[in-house]
Amino acid sequence: MENSSPTPSPVAQQSTHVQWDQVPIEPLNPLLSRQVVVGTNIMVARVLLKKGSVVPLHQHYHEQVAYIESGALQFTLEGKQVTIRAGECLCIPPNVPHSALALEDTVDIDYFNPPREDWLNKTDDYLRR
Amino acid sequence: MENSSPTPSPVAQQSTHVQWDQVPIEPLNPLLSRQVVVGTNIMVARVLLKKGSVVPLHQHYHEQVAYIESGALQFTLEGKQVTIRAGECLCIPPNVPHSALALEDTVDIDYFNPPREDWLNKTDDYLRR
Repeated sequence: MENSSPTPSPVAQQSTHVQWDQVPIEPLNPLLSRQVVVGTNIMVARVLLKKGSVVPLHQHYHEQVAYIESGALQFTLEGKQVTIRAGECLCIPPNVPHSALALEDTVDIDYFNPPREDWLNKTDDYLRR
Repeated sequence: MENSSPTPSPVAQQSTHVQWDQVPIEPLNPLLSRQVVVGTNIMVARVLLKKGSVVPLHQHYHEQVAYIESGALQFTLEGKQVTIRAGECLCIPPNVPHSALALEDTVDIDYFNPPREDWLNKTDDYLRR
Protein backbone atom coordinates (compact mmCIF):
# COMPACT_ATOMS: atom_id res chain seq x y z
CA MET A 1 0.00 0.00 0.00
CA GLU A 2 1.22 3.51 -0.84
CA ASN A 3 0.61 5.65 2.20
CA SER A 4 0.98 8.76 0.09
CA SER A 5 -1.91 7.73 -2.19
CA PRO A 6 -5.46 8.75 -1.30
CA THR A 7 -6.64 5.35 -2.57
CA PRO A 8 -5.02 2.11 -1.44
CA SER A 9 -3.25 0.39 -4.29
CA PRO A 10 -5.21 -2.61 -5.54
CA VAL A 11 -1.99 -4.38 -6.53
CA ALA A 12 -0.59 -7.05 -4.24
CA GLN A 13 2.42 -9.07 -5.32
CA GLN A 14 2.63 -11.36 -2.32
CA SER A 15 0.11 -13.71 -0.82
CA THR A 16 -2.04 -12.52 2.09
CA HIS A 17 -3.25 -14.75 4.91
CA VAL A 18 -6.50 -13.09 5.95
CA GLN A 19 -7.32 -13.51 9.64
CA TRP A 20 -10.32 -11.29 10.19
CA ASP A 21 -9.53 -10.47 13.81
CA GLN A 22 -6.49 -8.61 12.44
CA VAL A 23 -8.41 -6.57 9.85
CA PRO A 24 -9.89 -3.22 10.94
CA ILE A 25 -13.68 -3.00 11.15
CA GLU A 26 -15.12 0.03 9.35
CA PRO A 27 -18.51 1.11 10.72
CA LEU A 28 -20.86 2.45 8.03
CA ASN A 29 -24.14 2.85 9.89
CA PRO A 30 -25.53 1.46 13.15
CA LEU A 31 -26.55 -1.81 11.46
CA LEU A 32 -23.71 -2.21 8.98
CA SER A 33 -19.93 -2.53 9.11
CA ARG A 34 -17.25 -4.19 7.01
CA GLN A 35 -13.66 -5.35 6.69
CA VAL A 36 -11.84 -5.10 3.37
CA VAL A 37 -8.80 -6.84 1.90
CA VAL A 38 -7.56 -6.03 -1.59
CA GLY A 39 -5.71 -8.62 -3.65
CA THR A 40 -4.67 -8.05 -7.24
CA ASN A 41 -7.91 -7.94 -9.22
CA ILE A 42 -10.17 -9.42 -6.53
CA MET A 43 -11.30 -7.51 -3.44
CA VAL A 44 -12.61 -9.48 -0.45
CA ALA A 45 -15.00 -7.77 1.96
CA ARG A 46 -16.44 -9.28 5.13
CA VAL A 47 -19.72 -7.44 5.62
CA LEU A 48 -21.38 -7.56 9.04
CA LEU A 49 -25.11 -6.86 8.96
CA LYS A 50 -27.40 -6.69 11.96
CA LYS A 51 -30.93 -8.03 11.50
CA GLY A 52 -32.97 -5.44 9.61
CA SER A 53 -29.97 -3.84 7.92
CA VAL A 54 -30.88 -2.58 4.45
CA VAL A 55 -28.46 -2.10 1.57
CA PRO A 56 -30.31 0.29 -0.76
CA LEU A 57 -30.78 -0.42 -4.44
CA HIS A 58 -27.55 0.22 -6.30
CA GLN A 59 -25.49 -1.14 -9.16
CA HIS A 60 -21.85 -1.21 -10.20
CA TYR A 61 -19.80 -2.46 -13.12
CA HIS A 62 -17.88 -4.73 -10.74
CA GLU A 63 -18.90 -8.38 -10.71
CA GLN A 64 -19.88 -9.52 -7.20
CA VAL A 65 -20.10 -12.93 -5.59
CA ALA A 66 -21.75 -12.86 -2.16
CA TYR A 67 -21.08 -15.85 0.13
CA ILE A 68 -23.11 -16.08 3.31
CA GLU A 69 -21.04 -17.38 6.22
CA SER A 70 -23.90 -17.15 8.72
CA GLY A 71 -27.39 -15.68 8.83
CA ALA A 72 -29.64 -14.95 5.85
CA LEU A 73 -29.58 -12.14 3.31
CA GLN A 74 -32.61 -11.41 1.12
CA PHE A 75 -31.62 -9.84 -2.18
CA THR A 76 -33.98 -8.10 -4.57
CA LEU A 77 -32.77 -8.14 -8.17
CA GLU A 78 -34.03 -8.89 -11.66
CA GLY A 79 -37.61 -8.46 -10.50
CA LYS A 80 -37.46 -11.17 -7.84
CA GLN A 81 -36.43 -11.80 -4.25
CA VAL A 82 -33.92 -14.48 -3.39
CA THR A 83 -32.75 -15.41 0.10
CA ILE A 84 -29.15 -16.57 0.41
CA ARG A 85 -28.42 -18.71 3.47
CA ALA A 86 -25.28 -19.98 5.18
CA GLY A 87 -22.92 -21.72 2.79
CA GLU A 88 -24.68 -20.45 -0.33
CA CYS A 89 -23.51 -17.88 -2.88
CA LEU A 90 -25.17 -15.32 -5.10
CA CYS A 91 -23.29 -14.45 -8.31
CA ILE A 92 -24.27 -10.94 -9.42
CA PRO A 93 -23.06 -10.04 -12.93
CA PRO A 94 -21.75 -6.55 -13.66
CA ASN A 95 -24.32 -3.75 -13.81
CA VAL A 96 -27.24 -5.68 -12.31
CA PRO A 97 -29.17 -3.41 -9.88
CA HIS A 98 -29.66 -5.07 -6.47
CA SER A 99 -30.67 -4.34 -2.90
CA ALA A 100 -30.46 -6.47 0.23
CA LEU A 101 -32.16 -6.96 3.59
CA ALA A 102 -30.64 -8.90 6.48
CA LEU A 103 -33.32 -11.30 7.76
CA GLU A 104 -31.01 -12.23 10.65
CA ASP A 105 -27.68 -11.04 11.98
CA THR A 106 -25.54 -11.98 8.99
CA VAL A 107 -21.89 -12.39 8.03
CA ASP A 108 -21.56 -11.96 4.26
CA ILE A 109 -18.26 -12.30 2.44
CA ASP A 110 -18.26 -10.44 -0.87
CA TYR A 111 -15.78 -10.99 -3.68
CA PHE A 112 -15.54 -8.21 -6.26
CA ASN A 113 -13.75 -8.02 -9.60
CA PRO A 114 -12.29 -5.54 -10.04
CA PRO A 115 -11.88 -3.98 -6.56
CA ARG A 116 -14.52 -1.38 -5.66
CA GLU A 117 -12.91 2.04 -5.91
CA ASP A 118 -15.86 3.65 -4.11
CA TRP A 119 -15.33 1.40 -1.09
CA LEU A 120 -11.63 2.18 -1.02
CA ASN A 121 -11.89 5.94 -1.43
CA LYS A 122 -15.00 6.18 0.83
CA THR A 123 -17.37 7.64 -1.74
CA ASP A 124 -19.96 4.93 -1.06
CA ASP A 125 -22.48 7.33 0.47
CA TYR A 126 -25.41 4.98 -0.20
CA LEU A 127 -24.10 2.69 2.55
CA ARG A 128 -23.54 5.43 5.14
CA ARG A 129 -27.14 6.44 5.78
CA MET B 1 -23.91 -22.08 -21.73
CA GLU B 2 -23.43 -23.06 -25.39
CA ASN B 3 -23.97 -26.81 -25.58
CA SER B 4 -22.16 -26.89 -28.90
CA SER B 5 -18.96 -25.48 -27.36
CA PRO B 6 -16.37 -27.91 -25.95
CA THR B 7 -15.72 -25.42 -23.13
CA PRO B 8 -18.56 -23.93 -21.07
CA SER B 9 -18.94 -20.26 -21.74
CA PRO B 10 -17.61 -18.13 -18.87
CA VAL B 11 -20.21 -15.47 -19.59
CA ALA B 12 -23.29 -15.24 -17.38
CA GLN B 13 -25.71 -12.40 -17.85
CA GLN B 14 -28.14 -13.25 -15.06
CA SER B 15 -27.57 -13.76 -11.39
CA THR B 16 -27.04 -17.27 -10.06
CA HIS B 17 -28.21 -18.48 -6.65
CA VAL B 18 -25.68 -21.17 -5.80
CA GLN B 19 -27.10 -23.97 -3.65
CA TRP B 20 -24.35 -26.54 -3.53
CA ASP B 21 -26.65 -29.56 -3.21
CA GLN B 22 -27.81 -28.71 -6.73
CA VAL B 23 -24.32 -28.48 -8.25
CA PRO B 24 -22.73 -31.69 -9.60
CA ILE B 25 -19.75 -33.08 -7.69
CA GLU B 26 -16.79 -33.90 -9.93
CA PRO B 27 -14.49 -36.56 -8.43
CA LEU B 28 -10.81 -35.96 -9.24
CA ASN B 29 -9.03 -38.56 -7.12
CA PRO B 30 -10.04 -40.63 -4.08
CA LEU B 31 -9.28 -37.73 -1.69
CA LEU B 32 -10.37 -34.78 -3.84
CA SER B 33 -13.57 -33.62 -5.54
CA ARG B 34 -15.07 -30.29 -6.50
CA GLN B 35 -18.11 -28.32 -7.64
CA VAL B 36 -17.74 -25.41 -10.05
CA VAL B 37 -19.91 -22.40 -10.88
CA VAL B 38 -18.83 -19.86 -13.50
CA GLY B 39 -19.94 -16.26 -13.28
CA THR B 40 -18.73 -13.57 -15.61
CA ASN B 41 -15.06 -13.06 -14.76
CA ILE B 42 -15.11 -14.89 -11.43
CA MET B 43 -15.29 -18.68 -11.09
CA VAL B 44 -16.38 -20.19 -7.77
CA ALA B 45 -15.25 -23.70 -6.89
CA ARG B 46 -16.20 -25.65 -3.77
CA VAL B 47 -13.31 -28.05 -3.25
CA LEU B 48 -13.82 -31.05 -0.98
CA LEU B 49 -10.59 -32.47 0.43
CA LYS B 50 -10.28 -35.52 2.64
CA LYS B 51 -7.60 -35.40 5.35
CA GLY B 52 -4.24 -36.08 3.72
CA SER B 53 -5.29 -34.85 0.28
CA VAL B 54 -2.36 -33.22 -1.51
CA VAL B 55 -2.65 -30.60 -4.25
CA PRO B 56 0.75 -30.77 -5.99
CA LEU B 57 2.88 -27.70 -6.60
CA HIS B 58 1.45 -25.72 -9.50
CA GLN B 59 0.92 -22.15 -10.65
CA HIS B 60 -1.47 -20.27 -12.89
CA TYR B 61 -1.94 -16.75 -14.15
CA HIS B 62 -5.38 -16.66 -12.53
CA GLU B 63 -5.62 -14.85 -9.22
CA GLN B 64 -7.03 -17.13 -6.49
CA VAL B 65 -8.68 -16.43 -3.16
CA ALA B 66 -9.15 -19.55 -1.04
CA TYR B 67 -11.76 -19.37 1.75
CA ILE B 68 -11.89 -22.24 4.22
CA GLU B 69 -15.45 -23.08 5.22
CA SER B 70 -14.40 -25.96 7.51
CA GLY B 71 -11.24 -27.90 8.27
CA ALA B 72 -7.68 -26.71 7.76
CA LEU B 73 -5.56 -26.41 4.63
CA GLN B 74 -1.78 -26.02 4.84
CA PHE B 75 -0.37 -24.16 1.86
CA THR B 76 3.28 -24.05 0.86
CA LEU B 77 4.18 -20.94 -1.13
CA GLU B 78 6.82 -18.20 -1.22
CA GLY B 79 9.21 -20.39 0.79
CA LYS B 80 6.89 -20.79 3.78
CA GLN B 81 4.00 -22.84 5.10
CA VAL B 82 0.75 -21.21 6.13
CA THR B 83 -2.29 -22.97 7.55
CA ILE B 84 -5.68 -21.50 6.66
CA ARG B 85 -8.48 -22.36 9.07
CA ALA B 86 -12.26 -22.01 9.04
CA GLY B 87 -13.40 -18.49 8.19
CA GLU B 88 -9.96 -17.38 6.96
CA CYS B 89 -8.82 -16.60 3.42
CA LEU B 90 -5.58 -16.89 1.50
CA CYS B 91 -5.15 -14.41 -1.37
CA ILE B 92 -2.75 -15.89 -3.95
CA PRO B 93 -1.62 -13.41 -6.61
CA PRO B 94 -1.26 -14.52 -10.23
CA ASN B 95 1.68 -16.78 -11.07
CA VAL B 96 2.66 -17.63 -7.49
CA PRO B 97 3.58 -21.35 -7.27
CA HIS B 98 1.71 -23.12 -4.44
CA SER B 99 0.84 -26.54 -3.10
CA ALA B 100 -1.60 -27.60 -0.40
CA LEU B 101 -2.16 -30.38 2.16
CA ALA B 102 -5.46 -31.00 3.94
CA LEU B 103 -4.69 -31.35 7.65
CA GLU B 104 -8.32 -32.33 8.26
CA ASP B 105 -11.35 -33.09 6.10
CA THR B 106 -11.75 -29.64 4.54
CA VAL B 107 -14.28 -27.62 2.57
CA ASP B 108 -12.43 -24.91 0.63
CA ILE B 109 -14.20 -22.38 -1.55
CA ASP B 110 -11.92 -20.94 -4.22
CA TYR B 111 -12.58 -17.77 -6.18
CA PHE B 112 -10.61 -17.37 -9.41
CA ASN B 113 -10.21 -14.43 -11.76
CA PRO B 114 -10.44 -15.12 -14.59
CA PRO B 115 -12.15 -18.55 -14.66
CA ARG B 116 -9.76 -21.50 -14.92
CA GLU B 117 -9.95 -22.84 -18.47
CA ASP B 118 -8.06 -26.00 -17.45
CA TRP B 119 -10.74 -26.83 -14.85
CA LEU B 120 -13.51 -26.26 -17.37
CA ASN B 121 -11.98 -28.23 -20.24
CA LYS B 122 -10.63 -30.98 -17.93
CA THR B 123 -6.95 -30.56 -18.78
CA ASP B 124 -6.02 -30.26 -15.09
CA ASP B 125 -4.12 -33.54 -15.02
CA TYR B 126 -2.11 -32.51 -11.94
CA LEU B 127 -5.26 -32.89 -9.82
CA ARG B 128 -6.29 -36.28 -11.20
CA ARG B 129 -3.44 -38.42 -9.86
